[in-house]
Amino acid sequence: MKLLEFNYKNTALVSESEVKETAVLLEKYMVHLNEIAKDNDYESLEASINLAFFENQIAESEKLADAKKSEKLKYIVVVGIGGSNLGTMAMYEALFGKLHIALNGKNPKTLFLDTNNPKLFSDIKNILEDVKDSEEILINVISKSGGTTETISNFETLYAHLKNNISNIKNRVVITTDFESKLWYAAKNSGFEVLKIPKNVGGRYSVFSAVGLFPLALLGVDVKNMLKGVKDMRDLCLSGDIEKNPALVSAILMFLHNKNGVNISNSFFFNPQLEMTGKWYRQLMGESIGKEKNKKGDTVNSGITPITSVGSTDLHSMAQLFLGGPKDKFTTFINTSAKNSGVAVPEALVLGDLVDGISGKDYFEIMDAIYGGVKKAYENKKVPYMEVVLPEINENSVGQFMQFKMIEMMFLAELLGVNAFDQPNVEDYKKETRDLLEK
Amino acid sequence: MKLLEFNYKNTALVSESEVKETAVLLEKYMVHLNEIAKDNDYESLEASINLAFFENQIAESEKLADAKKSEKLKYIVVVGIGGSNLGTMAMYEALFGKLHIALNGKNPKTLFLDTNNPKLFSDIKNILEDVKDSEEILINVISKSGGTTETISNFETLYAHLKNNISNIKNRVVITTDFESKLWYAAKNSGFEVLKIPKNVGGRYSVFSAVGLFPLALLGVDVKNMLKGVKDMRDLCLSGDIEKNPALVSAILMFLHNKNGVNISNSFFFNPQLEMTGKWYRQLMGESIGKEKNKKGDTVNSGITPITSVGSTDLHSMAQLFLGGPKDKFTTFINTSAKNSGVAVPEALVLGDLVDGISGKDYFEIMDAIYGGVKKAYENKKVPYMEVVLPEINENSVGQFMQFKMIEMMFLAELLGVNAFDQPNVEDYKKETRDLLEK
Repeated sequence: MKLLEFNYKNTALVSESEVKETAVLLEKYMVHLNEIAKDNDYESLEASINLAFFENQIAESEKLADAKKSEKLKYIVVVGIGGSNLGTMAMYEALFGKLHIALNGKNPKTLFLDTNNPKLFSDIKNILEDVKDSEEILINVISKSGGTTETISNFETLYAHLKNNISNIKNRVVITTDFESKLWYAAKNSGFEVLKIPKNVGGRYSVFSAVGLFPLALLGVDVKNMLKGVKDMRDLCLSGDIEKNPALVSAILMFLHNKNGVNISNSFFFNPQLEMTGKWYRQLMGESIGKEKNKKGDTVNSGITPITSVGSTDLHSMAQLFLGGPKDKFTTFINTSAKNSGVAVPEALVLGDLVDGISGKDYFEIMDAIYGGVKKAYENKKVPYMEVVLPEINENSVGQFMQFKMIEMMFLAELLGVNAFDQPNVEDYKKETRDLLEK
Repeated sequence: MKLLEFNYKNTALVSESEVKETAVLLEKYMVHLNEIAKDNDYESLEASINLAFFENQIAESEKLADAKKSEKLKYIVVVGIGGSNLGTMAMYEALFGKLHIALNGKNPKTLFLDTNNPKLFSDIKNILEDVKDSEEILINVISKSGGTTETISNFETLYAHLKNNISNIKNRVVITTDFESKLWYAAKNSGFEVLKIPKNVGGRYSVFSAVGLFPLALLGVDVKNMLKGVKDMRDLCLSGDIEKNPALVSAILMFLHNKNGVNISNSFFFNPQLEMTGKWYRQLMGESIGKEKNKKGDTVNSGITPITSVGSTDLHSMAQLFLGGPKDKFTTFINTSAKNSGVAVPEALVLGDLVDGISGKDYFEIMDAIYGGVKKAYENKKVPYMEVVLPEINENSVGQFMQFKMIEMMFLAELLGVNAFDQPNVEDYKKETRDLLEK
């Protein structure tokens, strides 16, 4: 499998020499990351860069997925929120599309029960009504801390409902949490199967731990090929080669544009099934560099707001703003190099000649013309961007992309002088919520 | 039906007297809007404020929907992009949820074919494979100009496929476009049914024209109740009462915060089925005030970037940034005042006491505690917000919300001195795309 490629020269508003000068600031951190990689360190904050090499834990997830697999399996219900489900959702939609729930095919449908919304809950309950045999369903509850309000509430409510209708449902629950969390003990005591998350890997960096590996393996994703892409990209992103390392270059570009007043990072995907990958990245960037204080303890209110756009859909809603509005965005276009989709406009058109040049064209050719037009317009208007080209969309390339972005975020946090791994301000609302709930 | 309510006092970072002073700047424009309303003017740029009163056109959409309705109708395929489908998608998801395609029930499933993506096209083709009788399907093609590349390409490709499999499919196509556009004539010549869009109502303001009315009526939405909400809100938003007019207050708050450096508007919905309403609003704001030049022709690069957040999901990805990051956002929380959802956590919990205070709680109570916690945290951190409270989620209240937002945007554009109704920079990429397509 080819690796993703990137371009920024002449399209970003910084020079190559600025990029090189800034790379020097990351040399020490790069050495640090390489040591963590070399030591196969699974305890450090950056341990997520080693997850694809963590054979024991990968085998644990795969083995349990094999044990729970069944010809009859129709539905996987992932009960989790934020870092516990976004990576899995991203990979699921990338590979199976947004309409998978309505398609025929053998891979089980995956339902994501995240927030405590009655409509979402009722709809999932309604869909699960046709489950009669416990082998048709598997529930994966994921909470790193073990005390996530929405996740525990949703699981308790769903389980109370299902246990009346499906015998043996207890064997169809797998709980993923930190080793020795309160949930870990509660699950063990109640006789549920448990998978553990490496202690220092936070939710937003955890997709290649049991958090993502177990449901994805169960779904039938080729986990080995996915992790192959992750490993290859890890190695590329730990190299000092500024011409080839996408994480290094992307972090530096975002840092330099942010220094010049850019406070929005636009991930503009030209494949709609990557929209959820954009939402996964939103958490990664939002929580990793959105910080009230820097590592020295000074108040800095740092951060870049991540937004996700989808081509060509959002050109029909946001292009006017992107091209005409404030110069407050740095854009990363993500496209594939695949050229032949097998879907083409017919030669003979029932409505005749309404749009020039579409007759007989493959959908990828049309999208390429639109994408080319957009890049040209960005250049004409001096709206800065970089481009990431995936060879195609599959588990390997999306794995590459996610590993690239996680390492990019470590570099960016290092440049900004903030801690990429904590999220202290989340407590600000959770504390207030606890007070209200206990009333 | 109750009207939506709003609050901003003590939570926005501007004083009531500043709001009142700014309202004076809109007095003349308010008179202008009231004249357009009084005259039942359907020709002006602001004609969208009269759409709910445009009896002839409403009747035309309803009549055609009645004619095309069928007990057998399973699928509505909306072929359109941007202003042609976002309003319908917003209302569809608000009323039927994101999982409607997989639910049992009598309302037809609606599929949105927007961009030229081969995966999306193939998935929709796959879903439509079980259609045998033409009465099971209706295709609504929507393009204001009549020359939208993606829409025409998608329709031609879909139609070429379906006409081989479904006899009489021609009678199950309705084309919505400007009167006398090239598409209008092509459709008439080919014998397709046609609905027209009022000439001066642009895509982003067109949801209550045939663009939205026809598919929503076909879906079984109570259009009369929806338009009742729209009318009531129109009247409220044209009143000079600064205590009661949400459009006036919201526009002024956004304008004043933007003057103080805020360049992001966060619409934070606490009901996930309103996420698509956020995407509809994204176009409304993005295209209406994202402008290279003001009305005098000076280069201003004005604009506020709209983002959509969903509670409580996005608290687990973006709260850290919102509370700890840069002070560059003004937030509008949108919640409902409904208190009893009928979905509740059981009293007896299989995992025991992992989260205090959830046992026996209704889902709305839990969400209210989370929402209350978030508001408190925003206030503690001086992150500015206003709050919009819908009585509940139905066609009436979502209609209210959309009309409120469209008038808000007219006020905001007026304050910024830009044209709320054009989108000149969209041509920048379309021109380049045409050149590439014709190669």
